[in-house]
Amino acid sequence: MTEANKTLKREPRHARRAPVGASPGTLIADPSARQSALNLTLISPDACEFIDNASLGDVEAACEQWPLIWLDCVGLANIALIEEIGRIFGLHTLALEDVVNTGQRPKADFFDDYAFFILSMIDDVKTGRYEQISFFFGENFVVTFQEREGDPFGPVRQRIRTSNPSRLRNGKADYLAYALIDAVVDSYFPIVDATGDKLDAIEDELLAAPQKHHISQLHGLRRATNLLKRTIWPLRDALTALIRSDAAFISPETKVYFNDTLDHSIRLTETVESQRETMIGLIEMHLSLAQARTNEIIAVLTIVSAIFIPLTFLAGIWGMNFDPASSPWNMPELLSYYGYPAALGFMALVAIVLLVIFRLRKWI
Amino acid sequence: MTEANKTLKREPRHARRAPVGASPGTLIADPSARQSALNLTLISPDACEFIDNASLGDVEAACEQWPLIWLDCVGLANIALIEEIGRIFGLHTLALEDVVNTGQRPKADFFDDYAFFILSMIDDVKTGRYEQISFFFGENFVVTFQEREGDPFGPVRQRIRTSNPSRLRNGKADYLAYALIDAVVDSYFPIVDATGDKLDAIEDELLAAPQKHHISQLHGLRRATNLLKRTIWPLRDALTALIRSDAAFISPETKVYFNDTLDHSIRLTETVESQRETMIGLIEMHLSLAQARTNEIIAVLTIVSAIFIPLTFLAGIWGMNFDPASSPWNMPELLSYYGYPAALGFMALVAIVLLVIFRLRKWI
Amino acid sequence: MTEANKTLKREPRHARRAPVGASPGTLIADPSARQSALNLTLISPDACEFIDNASLGDVEAACEQWPLIWLDCVGLANIALIEEIGRIFGLHTLALEDVVNTGQRPKADFFDDYAFFILSMIDDVKTGRYEQISFFFGENFVVTFQEREGDPFGPVRQRIRTSNPSRLRNGKADYLAYALIDAVVDSYFPIVDATGDKLDAIEDELLAAPQKHHISQLHGLRRATNLLKRTIWPLRDALTALIRSDAAFISPETKVYFNDTLDHSIRLTETVESQRETMIGLIEMHLSLAQARTNEIIAVLTIVSAIFIPLTFLAGIWGMNFDPASSPWNMPELLSYYGYPAALGFMALVAIVLLVIFRLRKWI
Amino acid sequence: MTEANKTLKREPRHARRAPVGASPGTLIADPSARQSALNLTLISPDACEFIDNASLGDVEAACEQWPLIWLDCVGLANIALIEEIGRIFGLHTLALEDVVNTGQRPKADFFDDYAFFILSMIDDVKTGRYEQISFFFGENFVVTFQEREGDPFGPVRQRIRTSNPSRLRNGKADYLAYALIDAVVDSYFPIVDATGDKLDAIEDELLAAPQKHHISQLHGLRRATNLLKRTIWPLRDALTALIRSDAAFISPETKVYFNDTLDHSIRLTETVESQRETMIGLIEMHLSLAQARTNEIIAVLTIVSAIFIPLTFLAGIWGMNFDPASSPWNMPELLSYYGYPAALGFMALVAIVLLVIFRLRKWI
Amino acid sequence: MTEANKTLKREPRHARRAPVGASPGTLIADPSARQSALNLTLISPDACEFIDNASLGDVEAACEQWPLIWLDCVGLANIALIEEIGRIFGLHTLALEDVVNTGQRPKADFFDDYAFFILSMIDDVKTGRYEQISFFFGENFVVTFQEREGDPFGPVRQRIRTSNPSRLRNGKADYLAYALIDAVVDSYFPIVDATGDKLDAIEDELLAAPQKHHISQLHGLRRATNLLKRTIWPLRDALTALIRSDAAFISPETKVYFNDTLDHSIRLTETVESQRETMIGLIEMHLSLAQARTNEIIAVLTIVSAIFIPLTFLAGIWGMNFDPASSPWNMPELLSYYGYPAALGFMALVAIVLLVIFRLRKWI
Repeated sequence: MTEANKTLKREPRHARRAPVGASPGTLIADPSARQSALNLTLISPDACEFIDNASLGDVEAACEQWPLIWLDCVGLANIALIEEIGRIFGLHTLALEDVVNTGQRPKADFFDDYAFFILSMIDDVKTGRYEQISFFFGENFVVTFQEREGDPFGPVRQRIRTSNPSRLRNGKADYLAYALIDAVVDSYFPIVDATGDKLDAIEDELLAAPQKHHISQLHGLRRATNLLKRTIWPLRDALTALIRSDAAFISPETKVYFNDTLDHSIRLTETVESQRETMIGLIEMHLSLAQARTNEIIAVLTIVSAIFIPLTFLAGIWGMNFDPASSPWNMPELLSYYGYPAALGFMALVAIVLLVIFRLRKWI
Repeated sequence: MTEANKTLKREPRHARRAPVGASPGTLIADPSARQSALNLTLISPDACEFIDNASLGDVEAACEQWPLIWLDCVGLANIALIEEIGRIFGLHTLALEDVVNTGQRPKADFFDDYAFFILSMIDDVKTGRYEQISFFFGENFVVTFQEREGDPFGPVRQRIRTSNPSRLRNGKADYLAYALIDAVVDSYFPIVDATGDKLDAIEDELLAAPQKHHISQLHGLRRATNLLKRTIWPLRDALTALIRSDAAFISPETKVYFNDTLDHSIRLTETVESQRETMIGLIEMHLSLAQARTNEIIAVLTIVSAIFIPLTFLAGIWGMNFDPASSPWNMPELLSYYGYPAALGFMALVAIVLLVIFRLRKWI
Repeated sequence: MTEANKTLKREPRHARRAPVGASPGTLIADPSARQSALNLTLISPDACEFIDNASLGDVEAACEQWPLIWLDCVGLANIALIEEIGRIFGLHTLALEDVVNTGQRPKADFFDDYAFFILSMIDDVKTGRYEQISFFFGENFVVTFQEREGDPFGPVRQRIRTSNPSRLRNGKADYLAYALIDAVVDSYFPIVDATGDKLDAIEDELLAAPQKHHISQLHGLRRATNLLKRTIWPLRDALTALIRSDAAFISPETKVYFNDTLDHSIRLTETVESQRETMIGLIEMHLSLAQARTNEIIAVLTIVSAIFIPLTFLAGIWGMNFDPASSPWNMPELLSYYGYPAALGFMALVAIVLLVIFRLRKWI
Repeated sequence: MTEANKTLKREPRHARRAPVGASPGTLIADPSARQSALNLTLISPDACEFIDNASLGDVEAACEQWPLIWLDCVGLANIALIEEIGRIFGLHTLALEDVVNTGQRPKADFFDDYAFFILSMIDDVKTGRYEQISFFFGENFVVTFQEREGDPFGPVRQRIRTSNPSRLRNGKADYLAYALIDAVVDSYFPIVDATGDKLDAIEDELLAAPQKHHISQLHGLRRATNLLKRTIWPLRDALTALIRSDAAFISPETKVYFNDTLDHSIRLTETVESQRETMIGLIEMHLSLAQARTNEIIAVLTIVSAIFIPLTFLAGIWGMNFDPASSPWNMPELLSYYGYPAALGFMALVAIVLLVIFRLRKWI
Repeated sequence: MTEANKTLKREPRHARRAPVGASPGTLIADPSARQSALNLTLISPDACEFIDNASLGDVEAACEQWPLIWLDCVGLANIALIEEIGRIFGLHTLALEDVVNTGQRPKADFFDDYAFFILSMIDDVKTGRYEQISFFFGENFVVTFQEREGDPFGPVRQRIRTSNPSRLRNGKADYLAYALIDAVVDSYFPIVDATGDKLDAIEDELLAAPQKHHISQLHGLRRATNLLKRTIWPLRDALTALIRSDAAFISPETKVYFNDTLDHSIRLTETVESQRETMIGLIEMHLSLAQARTNEIIAVLTIVSAIFIPLTFLAGIWGMNFDPASSPWNMPELLSYYGYPAALGFMALVAIVLLVIFRLRKWI
């Protein structure tokens, strides 16, 4: 089992939860959470600006000056900062609690003038670690929260920067949110494809010679795939909720695009489902091949034993020490002129008869 | 199998039932039920009071004086007492029958001016014993019945006592009921997480060396998980019924909170479902690994046998007692000058040929 | 396999059917049906009367005099009698055909002024034989048909007789029908609980030592449980149909009670479903344990063989009869001073090396 | 495997299809189709007439004179004849295409003034061959098409002929169609019951001694049952469509009868489903029993080997030819006074110790 | 494994996708796509014309002159050409993106004045390679896109050319689209039938003698069938969407025909589903048969070993070299008159007793 595999097979740690019985809406930082940093993207049809490590003051100023702003908060350790962001954009504390307590299921919730969307992305392809990304988007803002540095938003930022007369610049927040969510969903494909390639490789090896380590490899992939399925499956409902929503800040044109993302997520689910079936098939095939191999080995053992054990018995007979001198009944064959060749010939005959029997039974 | 495991794998005793054909609504105490004790919590925005071992008189007095009261009845042996509580709060006898006949499925029933909610909690983490908790809540009262001492309501009591301007103090009975139900649902998480940790440990051990006791461990966990699933699954329907209810005493704000609890219970169900899949995978992996091990062992047996049995036969040949003196045909090789080294050499040759064959077949 | 088990595992005979192509509504008695006997129960708020072996005249007379009558027909051989009962109460021939052709699925059918309800009960706990019970109930009558003597209606009769101011006396036919149906449904619980106990016992035995007879026991239980499931499952739909019906002769109050019966039947179904899962788990566990045992046995065989077969070969070598006198190359060790102890020492060395190897491979 | 079994396990030939890309509605006869023959049944309340090998002229004449006619066309080779029948009764070519291209799924289609119903019947109980039967029925005609001679309509014809004041005579075409469809559905029961009996027999044999041929028997039954299930399953939808249809030529009274047929088909489906479960259980039981048997056999092998291989080694030791004369160290025991009895005693001791060990491990 | 099988078992390459984060609606050609070529079919009731390798000018001219045109674009490399076609017929860029990024799921999308339909066909029966075919059809045009040369449209072209007064000539675009889609769906049948024949052949071979290569054959077929199922399954939804659509350019008459295609696709799905069940059955049967074979082989081994190992031990006893001369206790039997025959007789007795035991246990 390779190292990558070893890490891949572990589920992520248990989802974060507030202590049992705690007051709902209380934000409590995960001790292992990263320090928060704000990246601010300001967008208007004519211009765009990127402010890294923005301050809350920058955010409040931008809210008044720019038609569309995207605030990306990386790291969830600064509860005070997150609460302040919630205050600026009017976000509900129950939703912020879900932001902080990562490991939530993908879902879409609707509030009066903004939508709340949660999904997971695979943060690190090598280790298969998941990271929760939370989206809030209203008429003219998108707020995203992620656990760690590293996201698939690079191309979106590039499109905002370069392509001047683009839907991203002219569009409203809903189209920007779509572009970001779509980027996350699309980032699953390389991982799923890699699993497919691994399965192909294992299948080829299995057919050549089933080995013990294939079992643990397949088992590891199966666990990872079960986890992936659990992550992708609720995405369909969440996206459907966005498409069916009658919120004013989600335009019909954008819904067509969300529908495209839904198509992708359905394709992902089906591919993952099909890979699971393939895995189950491979696991069963491994068992069947191992059983077939048992038969093969045992057949060899049986043939060798069944031929040589009787012969050895015969040799043992004539190796007994009954004294021919004591009696004419005592092993007279030992003294006979053709005794030895006759004995060897008889043994050969026995061997040939047995071989013919095995041949007729198709064991050889 | 550890002791904890042993007890964990047993389902709880059969659900209590009235005798076949008994008149419905007849309350009959379980002979093993505990003596009942009443804990009364009196809540107003400005004050709160806790009365342990309250009398029925206390309850009736409190009903008139306090805007919100919570009556917690621990132990279900005193049928008369329970019937009296039913009279005070106007509870239906069929519902009280479900309270007394523990082991009911989680469910929500609605009556004119109160709701009836049943769920189970794991009473004792070590033994996995379940306990039924029944809730009645109306406009300004919550009545809970539990089988035994010990509940996850401690933090809720603490929040009532300490946090003065809290939703619990200002809220109505529905919010208090939510806080209590949520506490019970959240109390499942540590148990589910512990199962997950055990599975991880078993998996590691399995991959190192599959042992017979893993089978019974996995089987025990599977039974416990099946039981857990059966307990959690109907919870979703029951909570959904609360959320969709149009009862006047459940406010829309509280429904948002019940929705959060529903989210938790869905997450619980999915985790349990995923653990069941992991278990099935581990059980199959155990079988595959055991089969692989069979092959390994049998291969060794076969190799040793297939090499040494023919050699032993050869040694047996030359150990025969045909008398070379009687005939020139009788084992002349025994007297030849290089007979012994030639015999040994021939044996070595046979062994080498067999080893090469096994090597080519990739058995070694 | 015990005797009880043997009989339990068989499905009941094929459901009775009229000959293929026969005119529908034709009543044809099962040749093995019992002679019919009528038990008449007459109920009014003030009085009740029980007439065993009533005549049709009794029935017609009672219809006019008593506000509520219950006619219980035991044995289905007298077609003429059954047709006459149908005429008196105005029952549809298609329904009567279902009464006579036992083995029907549980179902509820509604006619203008009465309902028709079929379910099965386990007639004989020891053999697991099923018996069909058919109910007709309208405004003021209940007619039941059963195949054989023996039913769970004793307590209901007792409640009619003793408890004067009871719902059974004051109630309408719908409440009486409820009480009878509920008694039948409740009579399943002891059987289901007994199966649960048997499973527990088998599990304990399996973990101690899996035996061949456990397979057939589990298989027998599985068949019985599949049959039970098939009997209970449609009950839910049938009861739901009663509850949702808008027939005038089923009052809303009684529907609350039918809902309680529905709850019981759901609990039954879930218990049976869970038992089936447990069985499948036990069957898989048996296979895994048997496989583990195979490994254990084969390992012993392999260790013994792998140690002694090479040693025996060595003994065979030195048992060869090459003549040391003929040549200095011929087995000089036989004549050497320390030949024998050296040979024994070499054998011991081989044995020790092999034991160490097995130890390192963790086979011992 | 018996001959009947052999034929039973094969699926019927691929469903007939028009060539890919052919114009829809083109009738092309199956080369293996039988010559068509027309059987005409003329029905009025007062009289009935049966014309075998009727001509199209007979049909057209009868249409005008009789209130109800049933045309039964046996054999599908004469495309021109079938098209002519379609013209007389105004049948749609797409429907006729389905008649000719046999192997369709059961279904009900509705046209303006007639319904089209397809189902399959088992044509030959011995070989399990299926035959498609197509029904057209309108206000006053029923047209049936079957592939071959042999159908379960005999009793219906008998009821038409004999029972004068019968629903079949007075009824409309819908009741006649019901009687015919019901006869086909009922004809499945004997086959399903026979499968059940076979399963019982196999189970008994399996429990006595699992044999290799049981696997192929079970597999053959499973294939046949899968096929049967696929044939019966869509029947429910088709019958439901008839019952829910608002066509004027299907009266509410007849729908009650169709409902009865639906009940039968549901019962069929459930029985078949239950048989499939039983089969899967038996197949698993076979595997478990075979594994148990492997253990049993291997245990015998191991016990025999583990006892005698060490003993043989000991005998080999004392059969070595080290020369006691050459050295006092060389096998002095061979010359000692009690050497032989001591050796035999030691061997017996070893055997006893091993037997005790096996006994303690419960292998004997 | 045959060559055909080898290629059949591989899933097609991963579905084409635009780079992660790319702007939606951007057409990017697959590097391996073929050069595009346009085939134009012009249809009027009186005439038809076929233009191979048409230019865009031809297309624009035809649009104005002919009542119905079918543009078939083979090869997807020329993005500019495809965009130009989109412009001429007013096709949405998101739809064109799905055309270019092949490997989409079958689906039907509706736009204002045309429908978009995607499905896959098996491009090459030998290798099982899939090819996506995209249809756009509106009031008077059908545009199809395919990846490569080779399609099942030949018979449709033939019907357009030859049959003058045909629905294809008089019909609108919807009927033409139906004819084309129906041709693709029907082209699945030969492939599915071939799989069925292969399964029959494997089953026959399995029953004769289960071989290792059957496992990989079955596994390959299972993968291919899973893929096929995934391709056919969504077709039902897509066709249902067409039938339920209220688009003006799909006439009710054509919907009847689409319904026929839907029937075919349901039949396909059921056949494929049934083949999957058969495969699972065969895989399980293989395992059972292999296990049965293991038993058979091991039984032979055990019988041979259990008979000859004790006998060899006896021969070893009497082959020991205890010196009869040294003591009267030392193997006196060697010198006795009937020693040898008695020894042989005793061995024969042991063998007979063992054979009888095995016979009684039914091992022989």
